[in-house]
Amino acid sequence: MINNMTTRKVVCQQTIEYDVITTHDLFDPCNPALLLAGRAKDARRFVVVDANVAGYFLPAIQAYFDYHGIEARIVTFPGGEENKTIEYYLELSRELDAFPIHRRDEPIIAIGGGVLTDVVGFVASSYRRGVPHIKVPTTLMGYVDASIGIKTGINFNNGKNRLGSFAAPQKVLLDKSFLKTLPRRHLLNGVCEIIKLAVIKDAELFGWLEQDGLRSLDAHFQNEEGGRIINRAITGMLEELEPNLFEEDLARRVDFGHTFSYGLETRYERELLHGEAVLLDVALSMLVARSRRLVSDEETTRLFGLIDSLGIKLKTNLLHPNQLWHSLVERTYHRNGFQRTPMPDGIGNCVFLNDVNAGEIETAVKKLEEWMILKYENV
Amino acid sequence: MINNMTTRKVVCQQTIEYDVITTHDLFDPCNPALLLAGRAKDARRFVVVDANVAGYFLPAIQAYFDYHGIEARIVTFPGGEENKTIEYYLELSRELDAFPIHRRDEPIIAIGGGVLTDVVGFVASSYRRGVPHIKVPTTLMGYVDASIGIKTGINFNNGKNRLGSFAAPQKVLLDKSFLKTLPRRHLLNGVCEIIKLAVIKDAELFGWLEQDGLRSLDAHFQNEEGGRIINRAITGMLEELEPNLFEEDLARRVDFGHTFSYGLETRYERELLHGEAVLLDVALSMLVARSRRLVSDEETTRLFGLIDSLGIKLKTNLLHPNQLWHSLVERTYHRNGFQRTPMPDGIGNCVFLNDVNAGEIETAVKKLEEWMILKYENV
Repeated sequence: MINNMTTRKVVCQQTIEYDVITTHDLFDPCNPALLLAGRAKDARRFVVVDANVAGYFLPAIQAYFDYHGIEARIVTFPGGEENKTIEYYLELSRELDAFPIHRRDEPIIAIGGGVLTDVVGFVASSYRRGVPHIKVPTTLMGYVDASIGIKTGINFNNGKNRLGSFAAPQKVLLDKSFLKTLPRRHLLNGVCEIIKLAVIKDAELFGWLEQDGLRSLDAHFQNEEGGRIINRAITGMLEELEPNLFEEDLARRVDFGHTFSYGLETRYERELLHGEAVLLDVALSMLVARSRRLVSDEETTRLFGLIDSLGIKLKTNLLHPNQLWHSLVERTYHRNGFQRTPMPDGIGNCVFLNDVNAGEIETAVKKLEEWMILKYENV
Repeated sequence: MINNMTTRKVVCQQTIEYDVITTHDLFDPCNPALLLAGRAKDARRFVVVDANVAGYFLPAIQAYFDYHGIEARIVTFPGGEENKTIEYYLELSRELDAFPIHRRDEPIIAIGGGVLTDVVGFVASSYRRGVPHIKVPTTLMGYVDASIGIKTGINFNNGKNRLGSFAAPQKVLLDKSFLKTLPRRHLLNGVCEIIKLAVIKDAELFGWLEQDGLRSLDAHFQNEEGGRIINRAITGMLEELEPNLFEEDLARRVDFGHTFSYGLETRYERELLHGEAVLLDVALSMLVARSRRLVSDEETTRLFGLIDSLGIKLKTNLLHPNQLWHSLVERTYHRNGFQRTPMPDGIGNCVFLNDVNAGEIETAVKKLEEWMILKYENV
């Protein structure tokens, strides 16, 4: 019956290209970074700023655009996982629609954490079927993870990032000085993603975290060692992302820590930051990997030692084997029918498992709880 | 100050590819077309069907999937411009979320008119940041226009397609027999798009419309000449779309008839079908073009003769110069600051104008009204 068809093939090559730019003094009028993309004359910009960041920088941001004669409409967004909603997506879309911009050369500028850049990225990617946008991460999580890739999204129907898009920014502008005012819990949030990356692909970075992690944390990563750590993390993330921007390959190393955390975040949105959920997953996965002899006792101890040394207390009371299993089942749909669960193969290497079972999750949870009890009894 | 920056460039080549397949007896279990993409074993499909089409074909669609052992969740959608809303987008997203599908090999199937394929396309392109979809147009408008490109969208905040995406389908399946039951007004709706294409790029097609248009309309395009007309229209559309799928070039010939119609449709959603608004724009543009001596009197007469011969009565009472001007202003934002208004340069050729003014729109409206009065007085 195939011969009752005639086929016309439509083919198009597209180049996706963007710059991740490290800079400083971003709002200094002499710094051209914010206006590198788009028209800078007789132009407008729609700017969304995290409410916390606005508290520090709103006058500087306004002054920057005034200086350049740009008509800027600056709106604030509260940030926080609980605001990653369709309601905010629509509200921002309405705000944008009320401030007409040219479709191609007046990019939307998103200044804030991962939640903000995810939501604004989705607004930009769907407004008029896509207008350009620029991301300026102001949190460590944004800096090393959310902002440097092309994923946008909002939570929907109890699913994390259930609606969203792959939409490359025109530019990502990294200015480390935003981290100076970031609360420690939010610094640690980003550190969790760096730990994840180190465990799954970069033993040297893991060593740096052991050696310089605490000091860098105390210095809000303004120190040389802190700079080296986040630089390396960004390089590592981009190495993983660039050849697989659209996730054509569903077995992704950077998905390590994002299998069980998915369900945790959905259920404990108020209790857990993204990185905290990821680190719980990393710890749990490490114990699964140890049972399978993929990592040694010594490597396991190193991970928990690092977590300890940074002063992170894992919220193991939120771990329920049944919920974790369901999270894995959900991710299996997302990964098109196979678990494709990244697991450490020693520190710095990765394997993908398709046969993680409910029993070993339960065992790992028990071990993790035991370890926590042991640790806090010992203290 | 540029030297206070370091830049990492992220680059990725992407191939967009899809098939536009002409077939017949689409729901005959022996026709594999519907299952050419995705997994056909132990699989699921989420299928959205236009309510009118469901009236004729629901049992056949269900039987098709049953025959192939596919678990299909078939939902109906009412169609119609007034339902191209965020509410339906969210409702369909919820329905989809309640019927888990694999992310990559269980494509969503959209069976209906342009509104339906636009809405479902947007759902598919944003669910989990994009799952594959297949379009089956059941109207002539879908057949020659909406379904064969990659644009999706919903109306929002009084703007047509204000939210949406560029998202290529995996397949477009064209089965002309859907047109058999299509009401004449909806056949004409698609014919208007064909007229547009003929005027702006295909003088031969224009001749075919003059010669065989009415007969083909009467035959619901099941006749040989009708088949030739829509085949040629599809070929012409794809010629325009393929090299410019993402509208990198904003000067698009197929935008002819889509400058003034934009505002008309927004304001007269209940009175005008898309093609009807387009044809009003085409008629008006023809008169602007005549004033500029881009087309001759004879060519103008040919266009109005064709419209007449097909029994189309233009709703010129909906034309208000001020509204039309505002539509052009809106489109100028959409076209990034220039009008880029496609205008006929003789029948079959195109120029782009950036200096259409309010006065000549007003003059054209008056002429069009005069012509209508003249015509209906003469009858």
